[in-house]
Amino acid sequence: MVDYVRVLADDLRRFTSECFVRYGVPKVDADLIADHLVLANLRGVDSHGVIRIPYYGEGIKRGYVKPTSEFRIVKDGVAVAVVDGGNGLGIPIATRATDLAISKCRSVGLAAVGVRNLGHVGMLAYYTLRAVKNNLIGLATVNAPARVAPWGGGEAVFGTNPISIAFPTSSKPIVIDMATSAIAAFKIRLAALKGEKIPEGIALTKDGRPTTDPKEAYEGILLPFGGYKGYAISLAIEVLSAILSGGTLSKYVINHPSTQGGFFMLVIDPTAFRDYSDYLRDIDSLVRILKNCKPAQGSNEVLLPGEPEDRNYEERLRNGIPIDSSTWKLLTDIAKELGVELPKTL
Amino acid sequence: MVDYVRVLADDLRRFTSECFVRYGVPKVDADLIADHLVLANLRGVDSHGVIRIPYYGEGIKRGYVKPTSEFRIVKDGVAVAVVDGGNGLGIPIATRATDLAISKCRSVGLAAVGVRNLGHVGMLAYYTLRAVKNNLIGLATVNAPARVAPWGGGEAVFGTNPISIAFPTSSKPIVIDMATSAIAAFKIRLAALKGEKIPEGIALTKDGRPTTDPKEAYEGILLPFGGYKGYAISLAIEVLSAILSGGTLSKYVINHPSTQGGFFMLVIDPTAFRDYSDYLRDIDSLVRILKNCKPAQGSNEVLLPGEPEDRNYEERLRNGIPIDSSTWKLLTDIAKELGVELPKTL
Repeated sequence: MVDYVRVLADDLRRFTSECFVRYGVPKVDADLIADHLVLANLRGVDSHGVIRIPYYGEGIKRGYVKPTSEFRIVKDGVAVAVVDGGNGLGIPIATRATDLAISKCRSVGLAAVGVRNLGHVGMLAYYTLRAVKNNLIGLATVNAPARVAPWGGGEAVFGTNPISIAFPTSSKPIVIDMATSAIAAFKIRLAALKGEKIPEGIALTKDGRPTTDPKEAYEGILLPFGGYKGYAISLAIEVLSAILSGGTLSKYVINHPSTQGGFFMLVIDPTAFRDYSDYLRDIDSLVRILKNCKPAQGSNEVLLPGEPEDRNYEERLRNGIPIDSSTWKLLTDIAKELGVELPKTL
Repeated sequence: MVDYVRVLADDLRRFTSECFVRYGVPKVDADLIADHLVLANLRGVDSHGVIRIPYYGEGIKRGYVKPTSEFRIVKDGVAVAVVDGGNGLGIPIATRATDLAISKCRSVGLAAVGVRNLGHVGMLAYYTLRAVKNNLIGLATVNAPARVAPWGGGEAVFGTNPISIAFPTSSKPIVIDMATSAIAAFKIRLAALKGEKIPEGIALTKDGRPTTDPKEAYEGILLPFGGYKGYAISLAIEVLSAILSGGTLSKYVINHPSTQGGFFMLVIDPTAFRDYSDYLRDIDSLVRILKNCKPAQGSNEVLLPGEPEDRNYEERLRNGIPIDSSTWKLLTDIAKELGVELPKTL
């Protein structure tokens, strides 16, 4: 059963931008958010795509986030800045913060910007890819509403605290973008819908007891990926994102898909270290080593981080973006409510 | 059966320094290496302690590393520098690189130093703790002889590629220091000695077949921690350590306990972002949240990264450092060979 429709990226972008303009978002920011969410869908990261439109809209109605964004630089140095976003929608603010980090990096070779008081920033790869387009290395982190227990703990302290790191190469960039929880919340929801168990060691009930029942897990607590090592990474992301910028700790972030804690963006210029051609030669050589690596028993190939998303991107750009029926229902309702024309289905 | 001796840290440091002086290492560097290795033992990281003395000595004899270290700054900017270590012993070079990063960080709030052509740098926490002593955040990575397969791969491409991140707090610092392999090589050796199996999913035979036999694993290939997410972190460490500095890729590093690829040190000044008192207030608050977190079923408490090592440190400083009998035998042989007086056993 094929339970989805397909729409063209351009048309979905037009629709998304019009929705946000109706929510009171300035056109330039609405276009940016549309570009962002549709890129997430193109890359196959549907949890961070247009499904967020109604959630961001709800966040605006409830006063969790503001449709217009501030961008107040509260601390400004040669290589570092801190921005207060005044609780605006996260995507336009994080995008401007990324551009600020990129411009500082151009002059000193290394720069970081921290942002506090901003909404959900979407897919972190958006920002690190922006660095890569400028031949720079990007590293972005964010903390989020508490869902994840520390190693050994029975209460949620951290958000899914994702990290993205992207490296330019001569061809496609290497793009890491991952939550530091052992499983994404939406995959647990999916297992519950299908009546499947979830693996051991990835979630606890709300009372801190290990569970493989997706319903208990969904109402309960996630565990960090990779045991105590993933816990350590998650903790480092909490400090970089929330504490350096003076943002909200995950534990105190309002639990809603429109909210987030603080945002941290680090940009590194390879030419501050070496000639760019030498950097490219060596990273291309690493890419070749990985792509020529003999697969393990039961595996077909070694994939680079970002490679599955690149394949989705090309397929979806060509054939249209599949939107599952429940998301399509949400978009249909919004289209009616806001008086915006739905994208044409292919 | 208590199969170890105990020695005092000061005496072990004296012994270690004298050994390295006999190996042809300048006194100031020998003292630094002694301080480093004994700190590793005090913290319970015995794999990076005085057991390295004969290995570093062997590396010098075989010409893998030089007893005298170069420190040639080949690229120098406001926030970034690249150093060529001329294949000297790693610890003195990485320590000077850390001090260079700290001094650059003081002026711009953020600095990174990459080093190529240096031997084994020891325990990464040594460098990040050096940043912490200056009220700075430290992040150190290194790549190492290939032992770890990429996710889906059946050949070793990465080293155990460790990372350390340390954050100052009002009391003990938070100190992350971990390999990105699922298991440390010496733990596999231990399982083999005890005739125990190792867990599934952490190692392959040399032909790329999954195994729980420690002997096969020891001659075979390790897997990254945390599946494809740990693979991504390991890959990022490879790029930061080897490619930014122009160092040797893990695959081409000579496989010996005295060698390593490149070293990367990033230092961040919290006061470039906020008042230090505000930073401390917030990180202390996170520490309290973690230490007050209700334990999960089957767990006693939530530990901060670095807390087990701190407990070892205090106990071993008080009661002496335990040296297992096989390491003690190695040290006894070296003492005889070099004409250095062994530390007194307690």
